[in-house]
Order: sequence, then structure tokens, then C-alpha cells
Amino acid sequence: MRIFSLDEIKSVLNKINLVQEIEDGFIAYSNGDVIVPPVGELHFESPPGDVHIKYGYIKNDNVYVIKIASGFFHNSNFGLPNGYGMMLIYDQKTGQPKAILNDESFLTDIRTAVAGAISAKYLAPSKVKYIGIIGTGVQARLQLKYLNDIIDCKSVIVWGRNENSLKKYKDDFSKSNYKITITKDINQIIERCQLIVTCTPSENPIITNINPGTHITAMGSDTITKQEIASPILSQADLVVADSRSQCEHRGEIYQAIKDGFSMKDVVEIGEVIQGKVKRRENDKQITIADHTGVAVQDIQISKAVLKYLN
Amino acid sequence: MRIFSLDEIKSVLNKINLVQEIEDGFIAYSNGDVIVPPVGELHFESPPGDVHIKYGYIKNDNVYVIKIASGFFHNSNFGLPNGYGMMLIYDQKTGQPKAILNDESFLTDIRTAVAGAISAKYLAPSKVKYIGIIGTGVQARLQLKYLNDIIDCKSVIVWGRNENSLKKYKDDFSKSNYKITITKDINQIIERCQLIVTCTPSENPIITNINPGTHITAMGSDTITKQEIASPILSQADLVVADSRSQCEHRGEIYQAIKDGFSMKDVVEIGEVIQGKVKRRENDKQITIADHTGVAVQDIQISKAVLKYLN
Repeated sequence: MRIFSLDEIKSVLNKINLVQEIEDGFIAYSNGDVIVPPVGELHFESPPGDVHIKYGYIKNDNVYVIKIASGFFHNSNFGLPNGYGMMLIYDQKTGQPKAILNDESFLTDIRTAVAGAISAKYLAPSKVKYIGIIGTGVQARLQLKYLNDIIDCKSVIVWGRNENSLKKYKDDFSKSNYKITITKDINQIIERCQLIVTCTPSENPIITNINPGTHITAMGSDTITKQEIASPILSQADLVVADSRSQCEHRGEIYQAIKDGFSMKDVVEIGEVIQGKVKRRENDKQITIADHTGVAVQDIQISKAVLKYLN
Repeated sequence: MRIFSLDEIKSVLNKINLVQEIEDGFIAYSNGDVIVPPVGELHFESPPGDVHIKYGYIKNDNVYVIKIASGFFHNSNFGLPNGYGMMLIYDQKTGQPKAILNDESFLTDIRTAVAGAISAKYLAPSKVKYIGIIGTGVQARLQLKYLNDIIDCKSVIVWGRNENSLKKYKDDFSKSNYKITITKDINQIIERCQLIVTCTPSENPIITNINPGTHITAMGSDTITKQEIASPILSQADLVVADSRSQCEHRGEIYQAIKDGFSMKDVVEIGEVIQGKVKRRENDKQITIADHTGVAVQDIQISKAVLKYLN
């Protein structure tokens, strides 16, 4: 059993067809081929912290994966990162530990961003004049990075509440092939963007109205308290897609909308969309929404792929 | 974060006062100071295998511990051990991983044997003429090893079904200070031994009657199907002790006896016995039974102690 460091993991990432790996994972998941038990949790009060143990496997695959991740939000007081994470990979036929990817939660960020790119690939209107990014953090940057190969559009409007964070974001992309416009006015996003990606931990809706011909990928909301999109927008949408119907019924945007009367009955899964088992966007006037809460199969797929190139 | 090998772990074990560490753990557990969420599980069918994730922490301690252990019972076909196990130790204040003890389930065996020694320490009659060991496997050997410092008696009768296994057991102890007698007749154990330790995976009672003045430590039965002691013996006993009341209600000897009419109401916990919070054995005529199903706090205590000496 070897431990691989974050640097080693990063060194092989560009060899992997991440979109293909995560798509295959979503397909297996929607076809009922993935076993994902309930998340294990530990809570601490002083200082406050949470630990999550996510684990599972694809039936008849070679491995099972256990991901252990923590968030202790006072760590910065001690000069430490708030979160730690690692993925442990085991042989599915023998239980033998194969490797520990000590990725410090980096692979979770990547598989989340790649899932966003997949939603845009299958659900965005054919012509995107502007991409809208809601938020200025790690995920707001990674989403744009992984959209680069998926969407032709290189004009981006980024919304945030903090002027300095917005400027920093724009600076950080100054050498990229994106042309970044920053704004604190959410209407700039709603009026001009055909592909919007929400990447904040907001607990109050930021997007409260929507124009025809828009796709929203909702990445930020993954708990029972977070919400970035007002509930009526989900009812108004022509197509609502979940990464996992069973998870989205209990957390994220769909969960919030259900409380306000939205019905799950027409919600499809991204793994069904990818396979063409359900209808996709039918024209450039429709409104589509993809709600991502993060599924363990994404962890399984990315860790497997990374290990393949590390070995 | 460092990984420590089985050899490194073994090298520090004799520096640790294991009885003290595990006793402290049982006390904390019985006093409600230990957080132990439900065990995480994965099951595989072809080949058959199980994975258990046990985790928890003592309140206001320095660490939390996650133990991952597997059993794939066809592994010997591939020349591999059937079980793998490791303990991951994290800082309770920050979530930072401190160490991985890649102990290959060795520490689980040790903490189980030490728990048996603790039961004998507090519950065995004052005069033990013969120790009875039921079983000839790893735990049947370790129990005797850890009883050595606890009980003066060095005369041992070992029961097993297989003649070769019995002879091998006797040979293996030929250089020890124990005098081993082997038998396939369970009555030899019941009639002559005042301290009996059951160490088999039997699903049918092996001990079906008992004499006054006997203590039984039941180590083997830790699932909903295993049983080594006939249910009426628990009802007949003067004192029944559980390592964890909540666990023993759902697995092990007490669980089996409850199905046959035994009442939990007088069952006490070993952590209460150690502290003298409840009555112990009152004379050498009483029958006492300790049911051990294995509690995560034993893993927490032994891994913490090992890490202290490894660092």
C-alpha cells in the first residue's frame, strides 16, 4: 500500500479523460450499478468540526473507495487548512488496500468541477454568448477551467459580493483565453448569460428570476440549508436534472423547491441524460437546471483513474 | 502523516500498559464520554467479503480514530490473508491526519485479548485451579498470553474439535510457563475450570451447563448468529456483565439469551465494574459471565497508546 501526495496526484491529472470517467460513473449510478451506503459522520463542538466518511463501489468493478474528509473552520487560526481529505482505494475481490490518495480534498474539487462541465455539455443552449459564474472561490475558478474544452464561449461575467475577491478573480484569469467581466449586479448575469454556474455556499436564493434560453448548473447547494436559486424557478424550468434523485430529494436546490411545492416526478438524472434515456434540451428557448449535490461514484471514478496513472 | 507497519507497531507494544489503557477506555465508555456512531458496512458477493468501518472518539480527548477492516474468506485461495485492517488517527481539534497504523487487524486481536484479561481480573473467583480455553485459534492463544500477568494459575485445559489443532496449540505453549492439557470433552472444562474463556466462532452453544464458582468470559460471539453459551446459563448466573449494554442487546450471548427470555435489567457494564460503581463477584461460589462484543473505544485507546510510543 502506497500513499500518494497531492503533488504526485496533480502530476497525472492531465493524462486522464476526466469527463469520460465521470460520465461513466454517472451512467453506472443511474443504472443502479453503484452501492453507496449512508455517509458516516462525526461532529465536534469545541472547536467546531465535522468529519464525513463517504464510501462505496461499482458492482463488478475492481475496487472500492473510502473517502474521509474533514472541515474544522477555526483551523486558519492555527495557520492550518480548514479541510483535510484522502481517498483510500481497496481491491474489491480481496479487501487488500491498494493505495491512499492523500489529495487534501483536491480531487473532490476536481470531480465537482468536471460534473459541472458535463451538465453544460448536455444541457446548455447551442449558442452561449456569455457564461455567468456566481461566486469567486475555488469552485468558481475550477468550473471555468473545466468548461474550457466543453463550451466555445470565452466571454464570462463573474458575480460576487466582494470587490476585492472579484478583482482577484479577474487578475487570476488575465492570462487565460477567457475575457472576464466582473459585477456585483446579479441582473448582469441573468440578462446576458445563457449558461450560469452557481458556486457559493449561500443559504438564501441569489437567482430569483430567469430568462428563456438559460441553463443553470447549481453546484453550491449540497446541504439541507443551502439554496442559491429561488424555488419558483425550478417549477418554471422545462427540464430539471439531478446528479442523484435520492440525494437531491433530501438536500440542495430540489430539496428546497419541494418544500415550496415543486414536484420530483419529472426530475431526471444526469446519468440518464448522458445515455439519451430521457429527453434533453429541445430548443434554445428552454430553461434547464442541473442540481449537483455530489455523488460518491464521482470519487470512485476519479480516484481509480488517478491510481491507474500513478502505478 | 506517517504510515506505521505491523513490525513497527509490534516493536512498541510491550512498552504500553495495555490493561490500564483499555480499562480507562471502558470507564470513559460506561460514563457516557465516548461517541461511537453506527458501524459503516460494505458487502460483496462474488467473492464473498465484508468491510467494516468503526469510528469514534472520547470527548475532550486529543484524537479521533477510524478503523477499516475487511474479511474476504476466499483470500487464502490466492495466498493472501483473509483479513486486512488499519487504524487512522486524526487530531480532534483540527481534523489533521496524524498517522495510519497499518496493523493488519493485529491491534484488534490484542485489544480483544486484553479485554478478556480485564474481565478475569475483576470477575474470576479468588482461587482458580484451572483455566479453561474453548478454541485453538489466534484469540485462544492471545487470551492466555494476556492472562499471564493477571491470574496466578498456570494450569490450563484447552478444548477443541480438531486433534491436530489441539496438539499444535500445546506445542506452541511448550516453552511458556503454562502447563497445557488438551481435550475434546467439554465436560473436562466445565467440571475442572473456575475461569473459562470462549474463543470460537460457533453458532451453537458449546457450554450447556455450569458449576457454581465459575467465571466465563465470552469472547467469540459478536454477531447476531454466533453463540457459545446456552441461554439458561445467563439466567442462572449471579452476575452478567456486558462490554456495552447497547451492543450486547443486539448481538452476542446476551442477545441470544434475551430471545430465550433472559432480562437485560440486571446486566451491568465492565466499565462500571472496574470503577466499583456496581456490585462485583461476592464470593467464590457465584457464577459470573462477561460478554464481550468489542467496543470502538478499545480501538481508540490502543491506537492512541501505540502512536504515543511510535512518535
